[in-house]
Amino acid sequence: MDNSLITKATIEEAHKRIKPFIHRTPVLTSASLDDIAGCRLYFKCENFQKVGAFKARGAMNASLSLDATVLKKGLATHSSGNHAQAIARAGKILGVKSYIVMPRTAPEIKKNGVRGYGGEIFECEPTLAARETTLAEVVLKTGATEIHPFNNYEVIAGQATAAKELFEELDTRLSSERGGGGIKPDFIIAPVGGGGLLSGTALAAKYFSPSTEVTAGEPAGSDDAFRSLKSGKIEQAQSQTIADGLLTTLGDKTFPIIKELVKEVITVADDEIIAAMRLIWERLKIIVEPSCAVPFAAVLKDKEKFAGKTVGIILSGGNVDLGKVGKFFS
Amino acid sequence: MDNSLITKATIEEAHKRIKPFIHRTPVLTSASLDDIAGCRLYFKCENFQKVGAFKARGAMNASLSLDATVLKKGLATHSSGNHAQAIARAGKILGVKSYIVMPRTAPEIKKNGVRGYGGEIFECEPTLAARETTLAEVVLKTGATEIHPFNNYEVIAGQATAAKELFEELDTRLSSERGGGGIKPDFIIAPVGGGGLLSGTALAAKYFSPSTEVTAGEPAGSDDAFRSLKSGKIEQAQSQTIADGLLTTLGDKTFPIIKELVKEVITVADDEIIAAMRLIWERLKIIVEPSCAVPFAAVLKDKEKFAGKTVGIILSGGNVDLGKVGKFFS
Repeated sequence: MDNSLITKATIEEAHKRIKPFIHRTPVLTSASLDDIAGCRLYFKCENFQKVGAFKARGAMNASLSLDATVLKKGLATHSSGNHAQAIARAGKILGVKSYIVMPRTAPEIKKNGVRGYGGEIFECEPTLAARETTLAEVVLKTGATEIHPFNNYEVIAGQATAAKELFEELDTRLSSERGGGGIKPDFIIAPVGGGGLLSGTALAAKYFSPSTEVTAGEPAGSDDAFRSLKSGKIEQAQSQTIADGLLTTLGDKTFPIIKELVKEVITVADDEIIAAMRLIWERLKIIVEPSCAVPFAAVLKDKEKFAGKTVGIILSGGNVDLGKVGKFFS
Repeated sequence: MDNSLITKATIEEAHKRIKPFIHRTPVLTSASLDDIAGCRLYFKCENFQKVGAFKARGAMNASLSLDATVLKKGLATHSSGNHAQAIARAGKILGVKSYIVMPRTAPEIKKNGVRGYGGEIFECEPTLAARETTLAEVVLKTGATEIHPFNNYEVIAGQATAAKELFEELDTRLSSERGGGGIKPDFIIAPVGGGGLLSGTALAAKYFSPSTEVTAGEPAGSDDAFRSLKSGKIEQAQSQTIADGLLTTLGDKTFPIIKELVKEVITVADDEIIAAMRLIWERLKIIVEPSCAVPFAAVLKDKEKFAGKTVGIILSGGNVDLGKVGKFFS
């Protein structure tokens, strides 16, 4: 990866740029989850973020980085969910139109979120090809700028700010608990779909907490990142998982960063994801979506790796279609 | 009511006494819920409290107020849920036994909570008579001290500390937002079952925010507090509601306080409770139990009363049996 593309300053500037428009989300802990996992967990709650997910960060940073004459023509993207809402919200805040291509199978709660921010939805078949074709048509017609959900350096720099905040918070908190300064978590773990959050998290660790090992959690039913790290090239994603935010394949901008900086991808089965999600709902009393529970499921799966360690977990989002919750728990 | 029984100092001392053993829970806000309700809402999140409910406060205060020789023989109570866990937890912290009488129909999550704190469970039929008889036997056999879930002044003083914290937080927050000092919420609203939380909340308002009007939310299917305020005497509760924490009848210690200090009880139907609960889950991304959603349901039901006002809401607890969640939402 060409380090000059996203430097420490890039992330610091992104953070400064988006701060007025995002929440500094809380970091939660739970004695009972620590007991169950056998390590010390710090949950960065991006489910409390604007639009209910970390995606608000990257979308806002990319939109704010556009030239005024370009921005005026509007924003466009294809997304199955949270990024769609994030772009629609950015459009609303910046006073420009947003055009969102969504698979017709996307959860209703996410479509309603887009409409609530005044975004215009273009439905398409749930394939990457259909999404890209439809988006190309929309961009051609409107002159709007495409903001890719993850394969975009401004988006990656925006997502990096979640981990940056977690490191800042842990630095303060652990210092005061242990009476010293500059203590860093042993691990940070994020979910991986297209790799925007994971590559941002990895860059944040590199610049702000270099002793922290970066790990990823990925659904076994869409384990392209796991296979890509093994093979050394981008492998295609499957879509056999309930973690519907993590169905995408890595991009040519995210993969090189992940290849360089991420030590391990731990894959977890859907029943492990649901069990982890249930524990988070029950013990932390917060709503997280299935994709969001994947890193915690990974920690529970490989307890030996994390035993006795201090682990930061990025909880990515909380947009669940509650009408479908009954099928998760029994 | 005899004011000398719970004074301002009683609540302040209770707060000081329990502080090391409870969370100072966060106060959440949501622009979208404010839009929906037409007022400014501040949610005091006792669902994040120890044992997942405000009950940790009263149980801890009452237990800490016992003489050491009395305490040594243990703690006892009957409770359908959160108070049971709170007493078991107090016993564990103080190193004494706890004996908990629970209706056999109590949610499994709450029984497991009691066991997790080392409490000994005595199951009985789900009637008040059976609960009281069984508890009397347990107390006779063990010499443990009964700590009633609500009809106990130390318990009431403990529950009062939730509203006290909310007033403190709002005072700071509103002052900084509006650039002035000493601003008080127009309303504070709590759920009412046996009346421990409501009477404590009312006393906290009387001493710490006297201009704030105290309101209660109650399930229509167990509207004894509503009827008691009308008739001027304690009326019996029914039990036709999903709000299973609010099935109890007011006590002779809680009713006089409520009669003096609570202006109105707003009753809400089960479908209104579920709709309010769903909004809290979806927008605040937090788990609250049905009983806990009752005050917000009341605000949504009587929008005129609260229009444009600043309203503090006590969110009482978050212990939901997730295996039964499917029936709530569709």
